[in-house]
Amino acid sequence: MAGNKTVVYTGPGSVAVESLEYPTLEIPAEVAEWLGISRAAPHAVILKLVTTNICGSDQHMVRGRTTAPIGQTLGHEITGEVIEVGADVLFHKVGDICSVPFNIACGRCRMCDEGKTGICLNVNPARAGAAYGYVDMGGWLGGQAEYVMIPYADFNLLKFPDRDEALEKILDLTMLSDIFPTGYHGAVSAGVTTGSTVYVAGAGPVGLAAAYSAQILGAATVIVGDMNAERLAQARSFGCATVDLSSGNSLADMIADAVGEPEVDAAVDAVGFEARGHGEGAGEAPATVLNDVMSISRAGASLGIPGLYVTGDPGAVDEAAKHGQIGVRLGLGWAKSHRFVTGQCPVKQYNRKLMNLILADRAHIAKAVGATTIGLDDAPRGYAEFDAGAAQKFVIDPHGMVS
Amino acid sequence: MAGNKTVVYTGPGSVAVESLEYPTLEIPAEVAEWLGISRAAPHAVILKLVTTNICGSDQHMVRGRTTAPIGQTLGHEITGEVIEVGADVLFHKVGDICSVPFNIACGRCRMCDEGKTGICLNVNPARAGAAYGYVDMGGWLGGQAEYVMIPYADFNLLKFPDRDEALEKILDLTMLSDIFPTGYHGAVSAGVTTGSTVYVAGAGPVGLAAAYSAQILGAATVIVGDMNAERLAQARSFGCATVDLSSGNSLADMIADAVGEPEVDAAVDAVGFEARGHGEGAGEAPATVLNDVMSISRAGASLGIPGLYVTGDPGAVDEAAKHGQIGVRLGLGWAKSHRFVTGQCPVKQYNRKLMNLILADRAHIAKAVGATTIGLDDAPRGYAEFDAGAAQKFVIDPHGMVS
Amino acid sequence: MAGNKTVVYTGPGSVAVESLEYPTLEIPAEVAEWLGISRAAPHAVILKLVTTNICGSDQHMVRGRTTAPIGQTLGHEITGEVIEVGADVLFHKVGDICSVPFNIACGRCRMCDEGKTGICLNVNPARAGAAYGYVDMGGWLGGQAEYVMIPYADFNLLKFPDRDEALEKILDLTMLSDIFPTGYHGAVSAGVTTGSTVYVAGAGPVGLAAAYSAQILGAATVIVGDMNAERLAQARSFGCATVDLSSGNSLADMIADAVGEPEVDAAVDAVGFEARGHGEGAGEAPATVLNDVMSISRAGASLGIPGLYVTGDPGAVDEAAKHGQIGVRLGLGWAKSHRFVTGQCPVKQYNRKLMNLILADRAHIAKAVGATTIGLDDAPRGYAEFDAGAAQKFVIDPHGMVS
Amino acid sequence: MAGNKTVVYTGPGSVAVESLEYPTLEIPAEVAEWLGISRAAPHAVILKLVTTNICGSDQHMVRGRTTAPIGQTLGHEITGEVIEVGADVLFHKVGDICSVPFNIACGRCRMCDEGKTGICLNVNPARAGAAYGYVDMGGWLGGQAEYVMIPYADFNLLKFPDRDEALEKILDLTMLSDIFPTGYHGAVSAGVTTGSTVYVAGAGPVGLAAAYSAQILGAATVIVGDMNAERLAQARSFGCATVDLSSGNSLADMIADAVGEPEVDAAVDAVGFEARGHGEGAGEAPATVLNDVMSISRAGASLGIPGLYVTGDPGAVDEAAKHGQIGVRLGLGWAKSHRFVTGQCPVKQYNRKLMNLILADRAHIAKAVGATTIGLDDAPRGYAEFDAGAAQKFVIDPHGMVS
Repeated sequence: MAGNKTVVYTGPGSVAVESLEYPTLEIPAEVAEWLGISRAAPHAVILKLVTTNICGSDQHMVRGRTTAPIGQTLGHEITGEVIEVGADVLFHKVGDICSVPFNIACGRCRMCDEGKTGICLNVNPARAGAAYGYVDMGGWLGGQAEYVMIPYADFNLLKFPDRDEALEKILDLTMLSDIFPTGYHGAVSAGVTTGSTVYVAGAGPVGLAAAYSAQILGAATVIVGDMNAERLAQARSFGCATVDLSSGNSLADMIADAVGEPEVDAAVDAVGFEARGHGEGAGEAPATVLNDVMSISRAGASLGIPGLYVTGDPGAVDEAAKHGQIGVRLGLGWAKSHRFVTGQCPVKQYNRKLMNLILADRAHIAKAVGATTIGLDDAPRGYAEFDAGAAQKFVIDPHGMVS
Repeated sequence: MAGNKTVVYTGPGSVAVESLEYPTLEIPAEVAEWLGISRAAPHAVILKLVTTNICGSDQHMVRGRTTAPIGQTLGHEITGEVIEVGADVLFHKVGDICSVPFNIACGRCRMCDEGKTGICLNVNPARAGAAYGYVDMGGWLGGQAEYVMIPYADFNLLKFPDRDEALEKILDLTMLSDIFPTGYHGAVSAGVTTGSTVYVAGAGPVGLAAAYSAQILGAATVIVGDMNAERLAQARSFGCATVDLSSGNSLADMIADAVGEPEVDAAVDAVGFEARGHGEGAGEAPATVLNDVMSISRAGASLGIPGLYVTGDPGAVDEAAKHGQIGVRLGLGWAKSHRFVTGQCPVKQYNRKLMNLILADRAHIAKAVGATTIGLDDAPRGYAEFDAGAAQKFVIDPHGMVS
Repeated sequence: MAGNKTVVYTGPGSVAVESLEYPTLEIPAEVAEWLGISRAAPHAVILKLVTTNICGSDQHMVRGRTTAPIGQTLGHEITGEVIEVGADVLFHKVGDICSVPFNIACGRCRMCDEGKTGICLNVNPARAGAAYGYVDMGGWLGGQAEYVMIPYADFNLLKFPDRDEALEKILDLTMLSDIFPTGYHGAVSAGVTTGSTVYVAGAGPVGLAAAYSAQILGAATVIVGDMNAERLAQARSFGCATVDLSSGNSLADMIADAVGEPEVDAAVDAVGFEARGHGEGAGEAPATVLNDVMSISRAGASLGIPGLYVTGDPGAVDEAAKHGQIGVRLGLGWAKSHRFVTGQCPVKQYNRKLMNLILADRAHIAKAVGATTIGLDDAPRGYAEFDAGAAQKFVIDPHGMVS
Repeated sequence: MAGNKTVVYTGPGSVAVESLEYPTLEIPAEVAEWLGISRAAPHAVILKLVTTNICGSDQHMVRGRTTAPIGQTLGHEITGEVIEVGADVLFHKVGDICSVPFNIACGRCRMCDEGKTGICLNVNPARAGAAYGYVDMGGWLGGQAEYVMIPYADFNLLKFPDRDEALEKILDLTMLSDIFPTGYHGAVSAGVTTGSTVYVAGAGPVGLAAAYSAQILGAATVIVGDMNAERLAQARSFGCATVDLSSGNSLADMIADAVGEPEVDAAVDAVGFEARGHGEGAGEAPATVLNDVMSISRAGASLGIPGLYVTGDPGAVDEAAKHGQIGVRLGLGWAKSHRFVTGQCPVKQYNRKLMNLILADRAHIAKAVGATTIGLDDAPRGYAEFDAGAAQKFVIDPHGMVS
């Protein structure tokens, strides 16, 4: 009898692989009840996971920085093979290999009409927008598993045109479910274009993907900042300049060394609320990255902010931050006519374009972010190493399909 | 021998009309020195003021909330008649009546090339962007005067096609130098379009202009919030709904009363850093308007922020705010995928369009904002009444040209 | 036993109301076969028509200018009440009153993802894009009927929030299925914005809707040109200037009389391939309107071209035109850096906005286009009168639901 | 006493280098008279040419396909060193090395305000827009010379930040005056973005620059079509696929061979009105390229049309074409919802970005287009070889400054 081995949160600092029930073609009870409809989902498919990645935003839960309950299933970076289809899935078939945007969207509401699939109105009673395997995101089961149910499949699935080609490039293609589009969204939101100088704060996978995307968008120079030497080396591996934020040098000076002036045309905050101050002994400082980024961005710049800021953070350093209120130097941004672009990446706006680039052999994102394949049972180790700062992006391969 | 009567800041809470020297075709010494060029300005003209308005941002200086020195000349809302032209002014002639954008721009730098005239790179040693008669804005003389020098005149002047028509509609046209474009910019930045529901925080002249502009842009419903009953009545006079922020009711509830749901499609912060908390006895709370605006804006909204936020505020309520750092609920905005658009309005992007609308008799902005004409010698009274909350926009008529 | 009275093409110049079979929740056989899927449509609904309008593009078929076969069902301007829903219709319920975009779209393909619902890839074997009741448009049954099947209903239906309010404003709301969005698309495509001067070629319903939309978009002056005096009077009824193309005067001179110069900022071709030359005795001249529009549009203008141009026209005046090739003064357009925006309006991009404007009582499109209600059995008369040049838009009311 | 050796048109098929007068800081008499201003140009500079390129559009004149008079000076692709400045040139100094956009623009009119420098209103009595050394383009002297006058220099000049670096990369930088931005504009106008498949019609220098720009913009695959084998080889040299239009194969089939379907996402017409039909013996067919491009572009595509179409062509194949009217398959484009973007490239919108890319060593346009340096006296040979189909871009080096 088929179960479904799944990565589950088991308490602060810990995850485990547990055997849950095999998924059904049904939406979560809490969503169905809220919408006043049945749980039956003729629009859904079951996917057999080909790959499913560990994401930095999973770490927020695992570190105990959210209200995720024990038993929360994990995993929203999903690539899989269709093995069962509902009655109203017309354009995808059993055997198709597909990428799944981490944001769950109905394709039938006003936000989806506008391409804003990160804030779909029909998938989460708590707020606009949902995701697989995430607290407060609608109760959809996680995809760090053997199998997963994908609703509104004709809308949400991105089919790879050829199975063999897909499996051959799977480590690049697996990044389409989240970090490649998210990094690209950060760069697009920052207005990166031909000839731009760009600063990316944070050399984790999203930061590296933003830096790589900035190159795709035609940046003249991309500078990546972090305090982790290994991650900075990863950024240099594909042609970025880097600045070491633990060096004690001023950010503006280091930028000036790289591009000849203490400012860049465009900047991306790929860190978010768990930012730390610079220098030895510096503690958490939730607005520090954003304020830094303003300080070295040219007047008139847009700031892309894919780094997560939260509405509530029980583990925050002060009372205000616990309620998501942080000390932003808004006056500085205003004086510079800055634009701030926040929020989840609407993956569907970008995944097809980036897939085409990968399939044409013009993007090698897996190498840029240090993709490393592990088995499903190795997930706890992957979480631990990633949390310790490994310059790697862990790709779980539950069925041994990655060569 | 010609002097030049000019409104001058004479200390906290006070302005006076003083006789200064007649202006010359020269740029400020501090600008010339910084640029390493001569003060000679063959690109400049002298204007005889037809009208020049008192602006809310002048009040920041007059209240002593800035570092403006005693003797600071005032006035950046300028409409005038060309009476002298430099050798390189080719497309404007003596006798032309013109509107002048409050932002001084060279028309020859990268920012001007991109239409970002609010952050011109060649007009202010202190930062990008300049204005007439304003502290830290390049040292250009103010236009609440009889005469004023306008640099880069072929770039900065907007000529009215017909003199008689211009004088007939002068109270509408005088709003083109600042508040009409600034309000329109706020509404455009907020993404107001056909059928939008819109909330405008603040019913001062810029807020009213934003509300009026939202109607021009096709808004279905415009709601204006303030604590001043007279200003709210002004907003209702041209078809807006209003919410009284001093009522003690929740903003979301009041919005729901107006549009049937506790959210709007688009919102404008026309208040800025001198915001006050709601309710009786509430003191200054610099981020309160911005946080309010986030709370009642739909997921996916853009927030237009023409209200001024400053880099330093010696009179602020706390240490952080003195350095322009304020407690923003960024997590809330991020969860809603909000975009924040800050900064001075680049007037040239809008003034011609709005002029055409006025001349075609399709915009009556003077009435909407309560335009009230006064003489130059009455300027101190105008400042005082405006500061006391009059629902009026004071238009100074130095030469008695307004009928 | 329920039949379905439907307007049917019965030969050049003639239509009749025939009783066909009641619709089923199935897609056309030709579409299903081409897609390689079953005809079953769990995504579909049956609508009882509330209103359904006669469109100028129906006339192309009825005049015999297309390859429409005898028996072609007619009607793509559909507003109706949901009376039956498929198993995967989750967000619409029996009793909802809804507008239906004339372009049929799946909501699940790349074009729909991009908002290009006029060129959906899954609804028509012959080309991208489909419509109800139209030759070469996928074989979907027409909606000038008592009942009609709407596929992909959660994607295609626009629900009116309140039934009573909807029925009260039904003559305005019925224009959301085609001509109001189509006219608005023409104006948007032409770049109409605040303060624009605009020329609209053609005072039929789409031309009038384009002119009305240009006003909504903030045009300073809208000029409408036609040779039909009654239709020009209709344009003047809501504040447009008009030019009589049968007058023998030069178009540029007439434009100059209206706006003071022989050019406009933006122009819309709402005529298309059945254009006629100007002046007495002038015959059909398929590119004449487009060439005219170029000649009086400012350098840098965009031309919105909602007027239909066809790939084949058996009744054309010359061999080239029979194959859709016409003599365009492309050199003139090129010298002026014109942009040409062609194609069907993607209704879903606009219908919600325009609905919100109607419901807020800020748009009265029915009056602008001369909406006139008739019964289903009167459809043949409506066709004849419209073809004869009546300045009316005929709205069929099959069930007597319009008060 | 200094003269000014200049390339001059001396009759159909022939150019010569003649010694003309040294330029002055004055605008052409015909422009001054039309504007009603003096010829004095305090805004102008004299440049010593560093490089000046031969352009395909020069060939239209030299072939006798225009009304250019004997003695017409030639050359609009200008890079030079400032050697004299007018009194109102504030931001450029003697010794600066600068690129000059081929389109002359005043920086002070409504079109320049909107960035539409290709259709400036103050530089040409005959129409919007002007250029150096071109018939009907305002009478400005050509830059295939030793020296040239540049008006509105602070607006028109793009200064290279470092002289040595500039001279080192001069063959790339010289392409900034026209073909690199023009090709880039074609690709941008066609909507090329990350992952696009692109077809470029024409492998002359503009076509090659469009193809190269499409790669910069992130295209997945770029296909170039021509009938000249040498030029196709040039396109392959930097990674393009090519199709040989003289092969007799169908264009759609050849496209399908390259990208797996008979359509591309985006297409550029880099040929224009001197297009020829395909296959042996095919003669001139002015709309054939545009019609081809429509036929193989996806529904919803934009077509970038940098290839020149003229308002009058005395040497055209038929009467209509002599007046710039050509047989466009507009119905096909309309059925596909195509957009057509025509006109001169507004160079200033792009040249700074592309300069930054070159200076960062990320663009090697000279190699892509086959830059070949010749002396000023060799210009006649360069014209002849280019006209004969050489896969080269001839760069004239009048002062031996190119190493």
